[in-house]
Amino acid sequence: MADSRFFPNQGPFSLAQLSALAPVEIWCAGQMLVGKDLESAMEQMVYDVAPLDRAEEKHISFIDNPKYQDLFSHSKAGFCFTRSKLIEKAPPNTLLLVTADPYRHYALTAQKFYPHKVAHASISPHAIIDSSAKIGANCTIEAGVVIGAHVEIGDNCIISANAVIADGVSIGHHTHIGANASISHSIIGSNVIIHRGVNIGQDGFGFAMGRAGHVKVPQLGRVVIEDDVEIGAGTCIDRGSGPDTLIGQGSKIDNLVQIGHNVHIGKSCVITAQVGIAGSTRLGDSVVLGGQAGLSGHIKIASGAKVAAKSGVIADIPAGASYGGYPAVPIIDWHRQSVVLAKLTKRKPNPTEAS
Amino acid sequence: MADSRFFPNQGPFSLAQLSALAPVEIWCAGQMLVGKDLESAMEQMVYDVAPLDRAEEKHISFIDNPKYQDLFSHSKAGFCFTRSKLIEKAPPNTLLLVTADPYRHYALTAQKFYPHKVAHASISPHAIIDSSAKIGANCTIEAGVVIGAHVEIGDNCIISANAVIADGVSIGHHTHIGANASISHSIIGSNVIIHRGVNIGQDGFGFAMGRAGHVKVPQLGRVVIEDDVEIGAGTCIDRGSGPDTLIGQGSKIDNLVQIGHNVHIGKSCVITAQVGIAGSTRLGDSVVLGGQAGLSGHIKIASGAKVAAKSGVIADIPAGASYGGYPAVPIIDWHRQSVVLAKLTKRKPNPTEAS
Amino acid sequence: MADSRFFPNQGPFSLAQLSALAPVEIWCAGQMLVGKDLESAMEQMVYDVAPLDRAEEKHISFIDNPKYQDLFSHSKAGFCFTRSKLIEKAPPNTLLLVTADPYRHYALTAQKFYPHKVAHASISPHAIIDSSAKIGANCTIEAGVVIGAHVEIGDNCIISANAVIADGVSIGHHTHIGANASISHSIIGSNVIIHRGVNIGQDGFGFAMGRAGHVKVPQLGRVVIEDDVEIGAGTCIDRGSGPDTLIGQGSKIDNLVQIGHNVHIGKSCVITAQVGIAGSTRLGDSVVLGGQAGLSGHIKIASGAKVAAKSGVIADIPAGASYGGYPAVPIIDWHRQSVVLAKLTKRKPNPTEAS
Repeated sequence: MADSRFFPNQGPFSLAQLSALAPVEIWCAGQMLVGKDLESAMEQMVYDVAPLDRAEEKHISFIDNPKYQDLFSHSKAGFCFTRSKLIEKAPPNTLLLVTADPYRHYALTAQKFYPHKVAHASISPHAIIDSSAKIGANCTIEAGVVIGAHVEIGDNCIISANAVIADGVSIGHHTHIGANASISHSIIGSNVIIHRGVNIGQDGFGFAMGRAGHVKVPQLGRVVIEDDVEIGAGTCIDRGSGPDTLIGQGSKIDNLVQIGHNVHIGKSCVITAQVGIAGSTRLGDSVVLGGQAGLSGHIKIASGAKVAAKSGVIADIPAGASYGGYPAVPIIDWHRQSVVLAKLTKRKPNPTEAS
Repeated sequence: MADSRFFPNQGPFSLAQLSALAPVEIWCAGQMLVGKDLESAMEQMVYDVAPLDRAEEKHISFIDNPKYQDLFSHSKAGFCFTRSKLIEKAPPNTLLLVTADPYRHYALTAQKFYPHKVAHASISPHAIIDSSAKIGANCTIEAGVVIGAHVEIGDNCIISANAVIADGVSIGHHTHIGANASISHSIIGSNVIIHRGVNIGQDGFGFAMGRAGHVKVPQLGRVVIEDDVEIGAGTCIDRGSGPDTLIGQGSKIDNLVQIGHNVHIGKSCVITAQVGIAGSTRLGDSVVLGGQAGLSGHIKIASGAKVAAKSGVIADIPAGASYGGYPAVPIIDWHRQSVVLAKLTKRKPNPTEAS
Repeated sequence: MADSRFFPNQGPFSLAQLSALAPVEIWCAGQMLVGKDLESAMEQMVYDVAPLDRAEEKHISFIDNPKYQDLFSHSKAGFCFTRSKLIEKAPPNTLLLVTADPYRHYALTAQKFYPHKVAHASISPHAIIDSSAKIGANCTIEAGVVIGAHVEIGDNCIISANAVIADGVSIGHHTHIGANASISHSIIGSNVIIHRGVNIGQDGFGFAMGRAGHVKVPQLGRVVIEDDVEIGAGTCIDRGSGPDTLIGQGSKIDNLVQIGHNVHIGKSCVITAQVGIAGSTRLGDSVVLGGQAGLSGHIKIASGAKVAAKSGVIADIPAGASYGGYPAVPIIDWHRQSVVLAKLTKRKPNPTEAS
């Protein structure tokens, strides 16, 4: 279904190959397949991934949310990841891959058909690479890339066109740096994806303010990005002022996010677009920040906390709490504020909402 | 008046040439010119555009808003676009171009004097263009541009320095891609202006979240940009997850805007700076979004709706409605909320507003 | 302490050299040193800068805020900037540099040890420079830089990799343009730092709106950036529509800020990350804008005014006033609004703040 100009399909794959991505039971027509039935099912070939409503006989789909069970029952998909409790809703001829986490397994399957850009071990003659830089095996370095002195890049990395990697930066394996990205003063891990137009390692906003003018305070820290991190297009991450700025393993950052100096982000955090985090603030693990939220400097957001979109957080948030509003409060209080305000202003009926 | 280093004046033009841009009547001293008077007026030469207060005898200006009628009455402009109802306020010797839309006609005139960057049909030897790419007639491709495999670019396009056009991207005619822009997985129309530093086509923020880590879901859609669209500097537009992300004909997007995957924007929308639109949200035609507004995912903003700056929209908005606040409500309710809050907090007089 | 891969230490320096940066008295063990004691102290060598808690015998540190006086009393720093009133809290063997502004003097000292990137007077053979451009003495121009026709660059400037300086732009002395920055239609002063990924001089968001489509109004002004300005990564500054956009001397702008056409920013302003300023708004001198604040167009923020983070300013603010909220009001009123709202919604106790 995907436009082959952009997405070369690596398939087909046998059901056996796809089943190997994660433990599943194979069911059909209400029966779990075993023996010969299972063997012959495993030999069937799958040609593409597709959503329930567009999948055809040779395609594999998924259902995770029961609210789509009608779509599921009428799907033409030849193969489908599902939860055991939805087996009875399946179309009669669909081969079911039954798992506790259908969406996750579908994602892994889609990655197999359409892997993220693969390194071709080609270094463009139009890349400018300092002679002291060390480039690992099987890297792709595109035209216009500029790599500075003593840069170290691991194996199977991709540096896209016109990206700039400044002196001394170190990058792990299987990491992708997007086009026109600019990186300095950073230690970057493996399996990291840094999207196009990202700016990492510039010095933070540090001045000794004064009537005689604002004196720049040298920013002597770095940016440390752990493995499996993804950083969205146009996002900016300032280096530390003395300590480092840290992005923890597995955290995902969306586009146009601002991260100030000395910020520490824990593991597996999710930071959506246009969030701003001021200097020296610390996030625990698995923190989720909604779009356009803003966090003051020098505060702590404990692990598992959630912040609603557009909230303004000016104080610490305890573990697992959900906050919203500005100044941010527990989310139920924020919702109550909205309700109270609405009541206060609804005494007279409001004839029209157009103006 | 414009700095000729940056803005070469393409004039002078005769009044006849400028009148040809749109239907107008020519008036002077309260009379509509006809016959010989009109002919001789049409032969007069106009040398530049200028605002009312800076215009001189050889310049053409405009008045659209009656609140500037004093400025108009005292203007030295030799030529001026105006509405018929303002004719009586005109200086005695000014030649009036009477039209129903003076500002629009002034804009077209200013474009004639100072056209947007024109293609010179020069392809820099320092551009790196894949041999399989097809470049149309009369294109300008500046130094440092990187154009990938099977890219198709129409006629009279300009690709500015260090822009990156990735494999398979298709671009129409008379389109301008700004410096350091990065574009992939996109189908772009004609007469489109994409400003510098724009990022289009990166994969959206799609993950199967889980304790075992967030698994990336391949994003298999594209970005489709229709004709006459303008996209501001630093703006990011993610490609679709399976369906496409769509920017409708004639829509204008300002700087540093974030547009998530699968978003559909209708025709002639106006989206001001730093707006964020989350995934799968749909705008009708002629929707106007104020600066820093944020829209949740999977909602519908119907045609003609207006959203105030900084609003947070979490639910559908009906056609033609004006909304504001967070959560966004009909704008008169939002204004009432502000008034009520102000009253609640104004019981004691507030001696000073400095602190 | 800084990672020498990224931060080459220019020291050591004698205490005499560091004292020369600003007038100080030298004290030790409660005595101001004079004569021979002073002379021998001045000969001592200082090897690095460090915060109080990490400084060692050969390092120089500072204390400005009395709340850190315990850290000060136990510091191993051999040298320390301090205020006279904190002399009594000093460790017995530390040489004190007593000044009215310890942080400012520490910043100047840190700059001496770790100067901002220094020009090496090397012009990369991989930079593409128009033959009509004038480049001053001792400039560094890195690979992939594209410099257009009639550009003028002063002495001791650094243009980092893949930056684009378009036709006619003029730049003063000791100015640094970051990697992948893109600049056009601009007059830039001396001692300016423009960070990576910045977009300056693109045409602003100016259209004659209409049912027949939005007609682009040519933007015929420039961007004028005075001396000693710093502009953060990813920030966008549109050129004027006819008048110029102006950034006043010594103003500091953080990352991902949007500045519309015709905006005038006074001297020594501080504009933090993700702020948006709409067209034709004017700031006086020493205005401070908190992160993610938004300012409407055509308003005036007088000198010394402060705006809280995330505020929405839709009207003028008087000199020296502090405003907050949306619509922004005097900050004490805004705080009272928060308190009143909290009361209104706290009638029932709130058992848990997690949800």
